[in-house]
Amino acid sequence: MLSFSKTVNNVDKKIVDNMRGIAIDMIDSAKSGHPGIALGAAPIIASVYGNHLKFDPENDKWINRDRFIMSSGHGSSLLYSCLYMAGFNIELDDLKDFRKFGSIFPGHPEYEVTPGVDMSTGPLGQGISTAVGIALGEKYLREHFGSNIINFNTYVLCGDGCLMEGVTYEACSLAGKLGLGKLIVLYDSNNVTLDGALNISFNENIKMRFEAMNWNYLLVEDGENLDSLNDAIIKAKAQDKPTIIEVKTIIGRYSKNQGSSLVHGAPLDKEDLLAVKEKLNLREAPFSVSNEALTIFRNNILERNKKLIDNWNEEVEKLDKTKKRELNYYINSRKAIKVKEILYDIPEDGREATRVSSGKVLNEIAKKYPFVIGGTADVSASTFAKINSSVDFSSSVPSGRNINFGIREHAMGAIASGLALVGFTPFASTFLAFSDYLKPAIRMSALMNLPVIYILTHDSISVGEDGPTHQPVEQIVALRSTPNLDVYRPADANEVIGCYRHIFETRRPSALILGRNKVEIGEDTSISNTEHGAYILGEEPKKLEAIIIATGEEVELARKVTKNLREKGYGIRLISMPSIEVFERETEKYQEEILPKDVETFVIEASSSYSWYKYVKDHDHLFTVDEFGYSGNKNDIFEHFGLTDSKITKKIEELLN
Amino acid sequence: MLSFSKTVNNVDKKIVDNMRGIAIDMIDSAKSGHPGIALGAAPIIASVYGNHLKFDPENDKWINRDRFIMSSGHGSSLLYSCLYMAGFNIELDDLKDFRKFGSIFPGHPEYEVTPGVDMSTGPLGQGISTAVGIALGEKYLREHFGSNIINFNTYVLCGDGCLMEGVTYEACSLAGKLGLGKLIVLYDSNNVTLDGALNISFNENIKMRFEAMNWNYLLVEDGENLDSLNDAIIKAKAQDKPTIIEVKTIIGRYSKNQGSSLVHGAPLDKEDLLAVKEKLNLREAPFSVSNEALTIFRNNILERNKKLIDNWNEEVEKLDKTKKRELNYYINSRKAIKVKEILYDIPEDGREATRVSSGKVLNEIAKKYPFVIGGTADVSASTFAKINSSVDFSSSVPSGRNINFGIREHAMGAIASGLALVGFTPFASTFLAFSDYLKPAIRMSALMNLPVIYILTHDSISVGEDGPTHQPVEQIVALRSTPNLDVYRPADANEVIGCYRHIFETRRPSALILGRNKVEIGEDTSISNTEHGAYILGEEPKKLEAIIIATGEEVELARKVTKNLREKGYGIRLISMPSIEVFERETEKYQEEILPKDVETFVIEASSSYSWYKYVKDHDHLFTVDEFGYSGNKNDIFEHFGLTDSKITKKIEELLN
Repeated sequence: MLSFSKTVNNVDKKIVDNMRGIAIDMIDSAKSGHPGIALGAAPIIASVYGNHLKFDPENDKWINRDRFIMSSGHGSSLLYSCLYMAGFNIELDDLKDFRKFGSIFPGHPEYEVTPGVDMSTGPLGQGISTAVGIALGEKYLREHFGSNIINFNTYVLCGDGCLMEGVTYEACSLAGKLGLGKLIVLYDSNNVTLDGALNISFNENIKMRFEAMNWNYLLVEDGENLDSLNDAIIKAKAQDKPTIIEVKTIIGRYSKNQGSSLVHGAPLDKEDLLAVKEKLNLREAPFSVSNEALTIFRNNILERNKKLIDNWNEEVEKLDKTKKRELNYYINSRKAIKVKEILYDIPEDGREATRVSSGKVLNEIAKKYPFVIGGTADVSASTFAKINSSVDFSSSVPSGRNINFGIREHAMGAIASGLALVGFTPFASTFLAFSDYLKPAIRMSALMNLPVIYILTHDSISVGEDGPTHQPVEQIVALRSTPNLDVYRPADANEVIGCYRHIFETRRPSALILGRNKVEIGEDTSISNTEHGAYILGEEPKKLEAIIIATGEEVELARKVTKNLREKGYGIRLISMPSIEVFERETEKYQEEILPKDVETFVIEASSSYSWYKYVKDHDHLFTVDEFGYSGNKNDIFEHFGLTDSKITKKIEELLN
Repeated sequence: MLSFSKTVNNVDKKIVDNMRGIAIDMIDSAKSGHPGIALGAAPIIASVYGNHLKFDPENDKWINRDRFIMSSGHGSSLLYSCLYMAGFNIELDDLKDFRKFGSIFPGHPEYEVTPGVDMSTGPLGQGISTAVGIALGEKYLREHFGSNIINFNTYVLCGDGCLMEGVTYEACSLAGKLGLGKLIVLYDSNNVTLDGALNISFNENIKMRFEAMNWNYLLVEDGENLDSLNDAIIKAKAQDKPTIIEVKTIIGRYSKNQGSSLVHGAPLDKEDLLAVKEKLNLREAPFSVSNEALTIFRNNILERNKKLIDNWNEEVEKLDKTKKRELNYYINSRKAIKVKEILYDIPEDGREATRVSSGKVLNEIAKKYPFVIGGTADVSASTFAKINSSVDFSSSVPSGRNINFGIREHAMGAIASGLALVGFTPFASTFLAFSDYLKPAIRMSALMNLPVIYILTHDSISVGEDGPTHQPVEQIVALRSTPNLDVYRPADANEVIGCYRHIFETRRPSALILGRNKVEIGEDTSISNTEHGAYILGEEPKKLEAIIIATGEEVELARKVTKNLREKGYGIRLISMPSIEVFERETEKYQEEILPKDVETFVIEASSSYSWYKYVKDHDHLFTVDEFGYSGNKNDIFEHFGLTDSKITKKIEELLN
């Protein structure tokens, strides 16, 4: 519908140089930052924003805007400078606070902090990989709502650093497989990395590598040539495959250290700064911007985009009632979702692994809520994170809600964030032991506070025969200690339902830790109590003498221990604590009611003890695992670690006497 | 010197089929395992061991042996079956305990558990990436000792799974750059992954991808054709570049489910098992092996290798005294090293960042101990993990001790393990926030108990302006909770020296957590006390009323707090705890002396509180960081988190009253 083929280059050197000037002034004012990319890559970003990017400076959340991801997050000064020039709601004066505490212009771009910033970036590889998720989401949405409603490009600016990262390779390989043609990567190719010349560590043939992954490759030999840049972007937009445009640039161009890693990450000295400004015909005074350049840039952008926005609004008006309702629902997709009844078929013997329960609940939820999509890193058959009522997402079937991420855990995590950034509630699944592979991406979704659900199964030494490489020990505490992330380890199907409900109500980044083995679906567990994070299981003792906290698969073991101890006359309270984070957000009153401070407390969880010291008075009150596991029958391994009902009963009895 | 060009194929189908038979019997006996690869890839491993692998079945630690890495760790049954047939010290009967608790044949291969297993594998991508480190180490050692002493190939068997992992891409890209020609990857290409056909998630042109990374690519179209396999390996060995041999195989060949993912990870049913045996002319009884096949296989191997071993021993005898001493030193490289005096130049103002101190100490140690090599993920200028007296390792200068890993953190971790596996004490360095990127590899070195030193700098919110993406919060507890790994967070140069000393004495997997900012080199800190993990700083109070524990950069802050509180009359003991793990290995007596249980204890560390609950009675005794950081001046950020001497002093005073 929207034709871009007639784009002419509206960006001239003056615009680019003013952008450069603001950026190096910001760095100078902050006394820290990265002038290398700001001077080198300014023409690229100026060309994208000036000639191509579809956006509404007044409404930086417009759902059909093109996305721009500054994957080289250290290029923040250049991005902010461009966003200011492009007319976003940014005051020139505020740019002077770049990198200062409380400023909306932090050292690396942060989502929902700065107008126009589409995601947080900084750790290399995350931006470009998340952009693959955004482009994947766009393809689904375009199919779903029609290309008159959703039809946007995702632009990425990245450097050698991003391209060397494994997560980038994974994500780009999948982007090629899925034919994400609206993804356009602008590769700031300057032959320099922090430690020196690029060729001390890197000598790939980029063209061949990307073509091997089913991408288009284009080359812009002179990164200062704005016409060539514009032409390349026009070509890229016309392709069905994702495109990488290698733009040869000079890092820190115009600085005395241009072309060298010296100019990468430290402010220019005063003399150099002024010399650069002189070469660029910029005024000496900091933060001087040519009004003429600014006006031309902004007017061109407004003129180009106004038509597109008006058109889009008309198209929305034309939608029928149902579609319009759905679009509104999509736009408000971050609102709390009250998951009400869930049809649940309980197995005859009352026993079910929580990974299986999760699969059932996820499927029920997916039936009701359309923007739940996701997949696994080639373990769908084991983690049950698959929407059975839908098909596989593919290049030719972009309506599929199941994404075969392949054995690419890290990219899966980043792509999930990208999906969340365009309004989905994505799920991403692998074995808990391999959550380490995607931890950097989990961290990014936590930092951006995105409603991603990480479904992590095979959750302890109970994995058994596959041995220590497949048995997580330290992973749960690594996740629990990650800020913003809610970690859930439900005991059984009831708690699984409760966890999903809470996740959809809070819409927070979440990790569901699930077991491989069948457990009893308890008569004492509760869907609604799960939403408190912790609650009392079964009857209360007459006289409260001690508390046992357990989670996940170990709740079954804790029940036996509790029974044993009660039979011996001890007043034991049993607590299931599916989520520490949720429990700790409860009222102090509730917390004190459940876990009175002066009562001896024990914890049973087949995972690192670091999670649990806060609730017990001494290490011997913990029945946890702090060593690597073993290959063998689950029961033998538990026996080895002293995690049997008789051993634990005996030890607690000793400690209570 | 050693010519392999005349190798003829000594392996026939009978040998391969007997290997298959043992493997599927093992899986049947264990009631779990992976028959798909065992049936599909048997000819590959048989050809490597039967025709090429240089090794001594009697001495599986021979330093000049070829290495074989089963990167598809789930192919353990096939590996064990092959190791048995190849004549390692393995009893047929013991194979029946495959995957049982206590067996030396665990579910995935484990280093130092099974004779002939060169590394632990299982998590996909780790084996092949670590193999790159082994091949890199070989290249260095070959240059160092001469090719008559060190000259071995590193063989890898991997599948699609490994090739999709980002860490594999990173490592292979570097292997191509460094021209690791003695690395030979056998790619078991069967077009199937766990979730189904490979092409649901993967459609790369493997030849083009690897050629883009400066590898040779060879194709064996029929994986059953032992002559073709042999020819391809001969060709690969003659190359200067690393080689990938794509071997087209059929997963689960001869099973009724051959060619399908159904046969990947579950035992064959009885009927199928017997049908396979019939097709292969194997006896029905479990674990029947043809004596003839076994004898031929073993004799060929022995004959081929005897000459090589004898030759090698002669060459060693010819070495002069100095070289021989050095070789012995190398062979015993896992012994404790007593680092004695370290020349240390203290800066005039007595202030130095621990990352800088680390650089100095590392350089002093590297001068004395030759097999210390390593590098950084493109941050040498920031982490100071560089041996200044040496040069960069490169394809043409393999004597260089500094490895430019590029922006490939994950591969760096795996390669470091590979270097340790061939006798180095490697270091690998990046920013602590990005330790997440290599955590899966750190875990493998911890699991294998390898003496790798991870040097992780920029260790907290004190990173300042770069903001939350660059400010670690949860990383330290993630490392501390990793079994086998010793985590050190030294307060200043004295403790840095003490940490390095302890690391070289214990030779355990270690992570050194270092600060970016200058800190006072204390008169109270101590090199020798550091080796206790924790110790008292400065004078003792007259009456002990409370203890403050601090680590790293926060020791300076804790000194001020202690001073403040003492001035107010409180009897405060100040403890520096550079390593929780080391302290917890101390005698109970020492631990109780330093940290008597009944004394109020407070902790100051700008990192997740999860690390510290074990030493305090309540959350309010912790001065830690549990949220994401901010971009801004370090002091402003510390102020925001209440981490200033006045705020902490006030709070402790309140709590003590």
